Amino acid sequence: MRGRFISLEGGEGAGKSTQVKRLAAFLRSRGLDVVETREPGGSPGAEAIRRLLLEGTDERWTPEGEALLFAAARADHVARTIRPALARGAWVLCDRFLDSSLAYQGGAGGLGAEAIRKLHAVGSGGFLPDRTLLMELLPAAAAERLALRDAEGSDRIGGRGETYHAGVASAFAALADAEPDRFRRIDASGSAEQVTQRLIRAIEDLL
Amino acid sequence: MRGRFISLEGGEGAGKSTQVKRLAAFLRSRGLDVVETREPGGSPGAEAIRRLLLEGTDERWTPEGEALLFAAARADHVARTIRPALARGAWVLCDRFLDSSLAYQGGAGGLGAEAIRKLHAVGSGGFLPDRTLLMELLPAAAAERLALRDAEGSDRIGGRGETYHAGVASAFAALADAEPDRFRRIDASGSAEQVTQRLIRAIEDLL
Ligand SMILES: Nc1ncnc2c1ncn2[C@@H]1O[C@H](COP(=O)(O)OP(=O)(O)OP(=O)(O)O)[C@@H](O)[C@H]1O
Ligand SMILES: Nc1ncnc2c1ncn2[C@@H]1O[C@H](COP(=O)(O)OP(=O)(O)OP(=O)(O)O)[C@@H](O)[C@H]1O
Ligand SMILES: [Mg+2]
Ligand SMILES: [Mg+2]
Repeated sequence: MRGRFISLEGGEGAGKSTQVKRLAAFLRSRGLDVVETREPGGSPGAEAIRRLLLEGTDERWTPEGEALLFAAARADHVARTIRPALARGAWVLCDRFLDSSLAYQGGAGGLGAEAIRKLHAVGSGGFLPDRTLLMELLPAAAAERLALRDAEGSDRIGGRGETYHAGVASAFAALADAEPDRFRRIDASGSAEQVTQRLIRAIEDLL
Repeated sequence: MRGRFISLEGGEGAGKSTQVKRLAAFLRSRGLDVVETREPGGSPGAEAIRRLLLEGTDERWTPEGEALLFAAARADHVARTIRPALARGAWVLCDRFLDSSLAYQGGAGGLGAEAIRKLHAVGSGGFLPDRTLLMELLPAAAAERLALRDAEGSDRIGGRGETYHAGVASAFAALADAEPDRFRRIDASGSAEQVTQRLIRAIEDLL
């Protein structure tokens, strides 16, 4: 049987990376083969593109160039990692996927969702997750988590201003409401264990 | 006055790089400001993408990933090098442009011209040369020139088989015939000086 493809989305500090690990542990305890992956990256070619995307100053890439690089990385990731894993029956948990491009480059970045969807259609045949878990957290709570996590400071995209990140959050919410079958909006506040329980309930119908 | 944007296209060994230099010298002798550039590359971001594209084995990228990387490099090149040069009145001579993606990734590579044009619409607003000079040479003559040029051997794309390159040549011819205002088909045989004279005649109306 083909496995399931689950993406976790949300702004910085919502707890995506933490919950990918916890959800993977839960699914493995149910005897499933689970692949944990993330974007941009997740295959050797996509990781090379990730380095281009995250290094340098904010002006290194134009919005169009940035969107095309994300789409190129995603095409490689889908073809080389995600599709083969699903085909052999594994579940794939992915830390960010297409919806991050729609919310960041398409929404807050001003390119528009249609342009991003066209790139995804050409690059990855429009491939979508079976379920997308949108982790929502108030900005102050996310900032608190991030302050605890890293003193080093953020990368080229994480370093953008508050207005940009507020635009990202509302773009994510609109995407979720437009595709209620695929999306679940998850309250990401509270303890890690509480959040994991909410995520499990949001994928139980797929098990 | 805005300058003119001229691309030179054709298969390997047709003489594009040689003629970009010669045509630039001619235009400079007429007092014009001329920028010589090439694809993939031509701006710092695009040169970084070029390195990703040309290194590694033939299987390094899927056709979709390859097309997206070319489009990303082109978006950067257009935004950072070509448009600014034209805006200040310079002429831009470019060794390969969109039509190479249409002929290689779109035609011989099997993705289709429509997909490539969509990427170019998103990445570069569909920006096109004022004139495209298609340099046509019989395969045997091109092979002879290439054998003289480099003992080192070719890169990831140049190293593909004869059928692939025959597909490229016929894709180029079809593109030229579909856009007779923009394209001129140029006989690339004979001495470098003879070819330069043919190219000059093919852009004289723009001077
Ligand atoms: N429920 C939670 N309660 C308290 N702290 C948490 C919780 N979940 C995660 N954290 C901590 O908050 C920080 C951010 O979490 P995490 O790195 O998982 O977020 P993220 O969504 O992946 O962020 P980014 O988008 O920047 O990668 C980490 O230090 C993590 O340990
Ligand atoms: N008219 C000509 N007669 C003989 N040799 C030529 C002529 N034009 C170019 N050459 C030589 O042929 C070789 C290939 O030319 P050039 O590098 O300009 O081709 P190209 O179209 O840029 O090829 P590529 O697509 O591989 O970059 C070079 O060694 C060049 O000096
Ligand atoms: Mg994370
Ligand atoms: Mg050349």
